Amino acid sequence: MSDEIVPIPDGCITSSRGFQAGATYAGINHHPPFNMDLALLYSEAPCNACALFTTNRVKAAPVLVCQSRLPSSCIQALVVNSGVANACTGEKGLADARRMAGLAAERLNLKPECALPMSTGVIGRLLPVDLIASHLPQIKLSSEGGKAFARAIMTTDTRPKEIAVKVKFSGGEYTISGAAKGAGMIAPNMATTLCFITTDAVIEPGVLESALRKAGNKSFNMITVDGDTSTNDTLLIMANGMAGNQVIQAASPAMRLFQQALDQVCIHLARSVVSDGEGATRLITANITGARSAKDARVAAKAVTGSNLVKTAIHGADPNWGRIVSAAGSSGATFDENRISLTIGGTHIWREGKILEFSSSELRNRLQKEEVVIDMDLGLGSSRATAWGCDMSEEYVTINSEYTT
Amino acid sequence: MSDEIVPIPDGCITSSRGFQAGATYAGINHHPPFNMDLALLYSEAPCNACALFTTNRVKAAPVLVCQSRLPSSCIQALVVNSGVANACTGEKGLADARRMAGLAAERLNLKPECALPMSTGVIGRLLPVDLIASHLPQIKLSSEGGKAFARAIMTTDTRPKEIAVKVKFSGGEYTISGAAKGAGMIAPNMATTLCFITTDAVIEPGVLESALRKAGNKSFNMITVDGDTSTNDTLLIMANGMAGNQVIQAASPAMRLFQQALDQVCIHLARSVVSDGEGATRLITANITGARSAKDARVAAKAVTGSNLVKTAIHGADPNWGRIVSAAGSSGATFDENRISLTIGGTHIWREGKILEFSSSELRNRLQKEEVVIDMDLGLGSSRATAWGCDMSEEYVTINSEYTT
Repeated sequence: MSDEIVPIPDGCITSSRGFQAGATYAGINHHPPFNMDLALLYSEAPCNACALFTTNRVKAAPVLVCQSRLPSSCIQALVVNSGVANACTGEKGLADARRMAGLAAERLNLKPECALPMSTGVIGRLLPVDLIASHLPQIKLSSEGGKAFARAIMTTDTRPKEIAVKVKFSGGEYTISGAAKGAGMIAPNMATTLCFITTDAVIEPGVLESALRKAGNKSFNMITVDGDTSTNDTLLIMANGMAGNQVIQAASPAMRLFQQALDQVCIHLARSVVSDGEGATRLITANITGARSAKDARVAAKAVTGSNLVKTAIHGADPNWGRIVSAAGSSGATFDENRISLTIGGTHIWREGKILEFSSSELRNRLQKEEVVIDMDLGLGSSRATAWGCDMSEEYVTINSEYTT
Repeated sequence: MSDEIVPIPDGCITSSRGFQAGATYAGINHHPPFNMDLALLYSEAPCNACALFTTNRVKAAPVLVCQSRLPSSCIQALVVNSGVANACTGEKGLADARRMAGLAAERLNLKPECALPMSTGVIGRLLPVDLIASHLPQIKLSSEGGKAFARAIMTTDTRPKEIAVKVKFSGGEYTISGAAKGAGMIAPNMATTLCFITTDAVIEPGVLESALRKAGNKSFNMITVDGDTSTNDTLLIMANGMAGNQVIQAASPAMRLFQQALDQVCIHLARSVVSDGEGATRLITANITGARSAKDARVAAKAVTGSNLVKTAIHGADPNWGRIVSAAGSSGATFDENRISLTIGGTHIWREGKILEFSSSELRNRLQKEEVVIDMDLGLGSSRATAWGCDMSEEYVTINSEYTT
């Protein structure tokens, strides 16, 4: 059998074997139109689990609790609330995060350290943990519960983000599934991005962590950041090994396939987060090629998608391409305007440092597509990177002027 | 006579002795409501001149020409247009910038290298230098022409930014004057910020450059940047020595006074730029104290005023102070939320890591002032810095969605 990665139609985080989930409304998230704000994920078998966390010096209490428990080989439960981030809440917040996880462990007859807590929402409010205590028992767990899980973790998201893929190889088959929430990475200090991945694959624990780091660097670390990193950002993977495949080991073809599938899942979820960015109407993809180093490619790509001026110009379909060049030029990447080639939505603007003749009205039409792809070759080397962002609309400002009220 | 710095009522860039200016409409800037877009500044005596320029790898042609001519001891003219930045214009742009300066030198009977060109406006358009050639002769120079100069350099600015101060000390008296244009540093890759300072002080040339750098670091380098640095940013000083004061030398009391006056002029102009930021309704001042290092203080202050989420929250007078803590926490500065004290508009929010009881409605009132002052003590050292920014409104997005059209 040849290697294959097949999307599972209508897949969700419980598409991986042995995972169950459910959600309820506990009264924590008062932002309409959400009717669920407390979610529970359970694995029938203990999981190898590891995660990437926010680099903000201010870390939310549940992040600190997860950091103290991960990596682990006994994780079986994850309890998540939306509405309150449990960040900037001091010792009380830490105790609340531990109690929240403890309530999940208790309900599922697990040791306390085998359950993880996570929160998302407003920073600086205490977690109403009593509401969690009284509502957690109502959650019904099922292998179809992934759909409810993905909805319950939303804050200002307008739609759930989820995916599952089936991976087939000579050593068997397994599933990788995930759910994410945004609020748009355009607003990452609202405690923005949570992404939870499950897999039933049998895989070496050490390999799992490096695979997650690689996938994160290609996906969530490449979606637009406006200089703010959330206090709660988390990308977590849980692997329960229930698929029974031949163990995936470092530096094997099976490992490369796993990486490819995990990248695909993470990129899908990361793109879903930005295209549902607050007030967003278009997805912006920036492909940088020809960079002197991988770091140069990454910072240039992120500078383009992160520029307020690029984002607003694309929102207005204004063919103000000079902003794209200027954003890349100020990114810190080695840059020579006499070497660059620039294509926007397929319209060639610059070739090797020369401005080309092009039709502004054609460019304007291309800027009105749902996805605007910017290809910039720096002409200085062979490194490349892709970043994703979204346009910035008046709606973004309106949402963020009234968030806590 | 004791040292004194006295604002000159209605002062402008030609308040310094021996400086003349004038402006006209050449048809380069099509953005309403500006009726002038070409300005000329002339000094009766040769000036020591030096400047700080954009750190963007993409530098506008006039920046490159100025860099090749500065520092200098023979500068007598500066010609500036608005509407077109002459950036991303290659060899043709360089020739145009040189020709523009040459036209000014010719009119004033100066050697070509004694005149400087500068431009501001849309990136990626060729400078219509023939319009400059045909309109430059119409400009009438006078010692009251500073007012017209300050208007002619505006792009999306709604008002001119200018100041002059008289400095008195035991060795005589002199004047420092300046004009700046913004478009808001909130939009710095529109080729945003130009600031020109004149002085009639007699001062050692080497000292002038370090004084300008210090003043720039306290003023223009501390106004909010959204990650984009303009291709044209320039802070230029011209000193013609016509005040005849006792020469100001390094490390003297007279030097400290000059620095103080120059700081005052630059901070005034920098604050004027942000409070006239595109769509801005409020000025945001962030004072960071108790930082471990000067760099920490600077990055934390700039992170707070540069955060889209802080800017939008303050626009909506939303008491979402968690965003301020998170912005500082993600700035890269050494930060411990258990040590910070935070005051917003005089309302105490945190003291030494503890959240205080405060009235949200009081805080909301204070967020509605014209200037919102954020004081954050990091509790880790003795370094401090102040940064300035403005709120972000729907109007900001509207302006920047339609800039070239």
